[in-house]
Amino acid sequence: MEVVKSVKWEDGKLIVVDQTLLPVEYREVELKTVEDVASAIKRLVVRGAPLIGVVAGYGVVVGAKRLIEKGLKGKKLREEIENAVELLRRTRPTAYNLFYALSRQREHLAVSDDEEMLLAMEKTAVQMHEEDRLMCEKMGLYGAELVEPDSVVLTHCNTGALATAGIGTALGVIYMAYSQGKIKLVFADETRPLLQGARLTAWELHRAGVPVKVICDDMAGVVMRDKKVNAVFVGADRIARNGDTANKIGTYALSILAKYHGIPFYVVAPSTTFDLSIETGKDIPIEERNPDEVRKFRGEQTAPPDVDVYNPAFDVTPSELITAIITEKGVIHPPFKDNIERLMSR
Amino acid sequence: MEVVKSVKWEDGKLIVVDQTLLPVEYREVELKTVEDVASAIKRLVVRGAPLIGVVAGYGVVVGAKRLIEKGLKGKKLREEIENAVELLRRTRPTAYNLFYALSRQREHLAVSDDEEMLLAMEKTAVQMHEEDRLMCEKMGLYGAELVEPDSVVLTHCNTGALATAGIGTALGVIYMAYSQGKIKLVFADETRPLLQGARLTAWELHRAGVPVKVICDDMAGVVMRDKKVNAVFVGADRIARNGDTANKIGTYALSILAKYHGIPFYVVAPSTTFDLSIETGKDIPIEERNPDEVRKFRGEQTAPPDVDVYNPAFDVTPSELITAIITEKGVIHPPFKDNIERLMSR
Repeated sequence: MEVVKSVKWEDGKLIVVDQTLLPVEYREVELKTVEDVASAIKRLVVRGAPLIGVVAGYGVVVGAKRLIEKGLKGKKLREEIENAVELLRRTRPTAYNLFYALSRQREHLAVSDDEEMLLAMEKTAVQMHEEDRLMCEKMGLYGAELVEPDSVVLTHCNTGALATAGIGTALGVIYMAYSQGKIKLVFADETRPLLQGARLTAWELHRAGVPVKVICDDMAGVVMRDKKVNAVFVGADRIARNGDTANKIGTYALSILAKYHGIPFYVVAPSTTFDLSIETGKDIPIEERNPDEVRKFRGEQTAPPDVDVYNPAFDVTPSELITAIITEKGVIHPPFKDNIERLMSR
Repeated sequence: MEVVKSVKWEDGKLIVVDQTLLPVEYREVELKTVEDVASAIKRLVVRGAPLIGVVAGYGVVVGAKRLIEKGLKGKKLREEIENAVELLRRTRPTAYNLFYALSRQREHLAVSDDEEMLLAMEKTAVQMHEEDRLMCEKMGLYGAELVEPDSVVLTHCNTGALATAGIGTALGVIYMAYSQGKIKLVFADETRPLLQGARLTAWELHRAGVPVKVICDDMAGVVMRDKKVNAVFVGADRIARNGDTANKIGTYALSILAKYHGIPFYVVAPSTTFDLSIETGKDIPIEERNPDEVRKFRGEQTAPPDVDVYNPAFDVTPSELITAIITEKGVIHPPFKDNIERLMSR
């Protein structure tokens, strides 16, 4: 099983898969300047919060290197790197990993020697890449222990190699369990409105040779019943202290369908996804997005152009519908409030 | 409130709304020959089993009239009308109403006078049109009694004026309850893969001035919870003796979500939808359709072209998840087996 590498650092070159062309075309592109990197993040050539963080980390290196080659030095060099960081920061508004990666790189501006500063930045970028890869690996290993032999699993949205710099979160567990011979089939919800399941999850599983069937979101109920689904794995965008989980729209309905059919429902997310400042899911704000995402289907008008639409990007699944939360630090079982606190303080 | 008329018979002219152009364009077209009618049914210019039946009934009249104008008489005329009926019969394989309408028209071939035969056929076509309209009206009235004032309702697929020759089945109840001032908002699932909810239901409700919001199918769960949905109304393709109901894919999942949220779940269908030869839903065969319906939309690739797909067109909702079944003969409550038998024998 060979999982796609959505980002590579080869001989000082930053190479990414252009995700806007998937699933029709697989093309690797080199991002040669910080402007290339910023535009790639903005245009969703790379997407998925962990992947954006890793690519932005390399973006600072690419920018600094180019400035040094141009002959910039000392204070002027650092000013221009600050501008490059600012350019990257303004690409996407909510991806926490982006700000984290940029802030780690900015610390190196204090290194007085220019070449040493550049080396430190490259080392940090490679390290963040490796950290993300390892975190996915660990979640994969913990999660795979929960998968029964000969399992049929179901997943939503894209949480795989195209969303991270490793094998993914929820999809990482599926890859790992598959490589251990435990999974015979994956059902991938297409995930309207933006179709990340059909476009990305189906593509990367298919490419890696993992047996996958794409379904429309309204088929998940009968698939659970008639195709004897053994477990559901989803990612998370934010998790409250009590375990309530905000994730891609559709996750809440899946958790109810899983409960009705007696199927375990697992959330897979790194410990950085927990927001301990938030007591319950009620306090998680839900972004409502452009109605044309629903009124159109990849540019094609599907509903009357002036009809009203409700288009929440996320929903909140209450923790009582979640069987366990899989993190890189271990698996959290109910009671979630106590067990989240315990694991996070490790 | 003015509901769209998907078929009209005006001064001997058969006029239909071209549904392939919706929701982008509203265009009425005259079907001037039996070939026009057959092609319109085949190309889904008109769709929805009740509507197909009514249009095919008129189609026989259009064909017979043209043949008489051409000078055909007696036996030769009747032979050619049989050919026209055969042409119409071969348009769609499963719509029961189509075969019923054609068989009622064929009975008139026994009328010896040519002009009298034509008049009898026209009378029957108009009568079947009126019967369908009335049946919708009755279901609407029975169903509307179950709607609480100030209701938010949710529906799936298209079961309205574009699927029947009247106000519809499930959507007919919604129109009727709205006209009685009981409905403040309708949520319409877009209904993948063929998007009949977004393309047709949203269009006809919006045109009639009924407040409607389109959602993706994976949003129905949160909408039920957060938007305080009071009732769900769906149609039916076939109902077994025990009340198990086959309907558009996604209906089963909706029934579970409704149950979880304590929301009444109503099936609306004429008595002709009951198949008393079938004991339970287990005996209803489920058609699996072309995978490209899921992999593509209007030619646009949304999943890898060679990836596996599961694409059932219908699913079966067990009767224990159904609150009541609304027919033109009255409302059927549990226990369904006894009450279906009682109502059907009336």
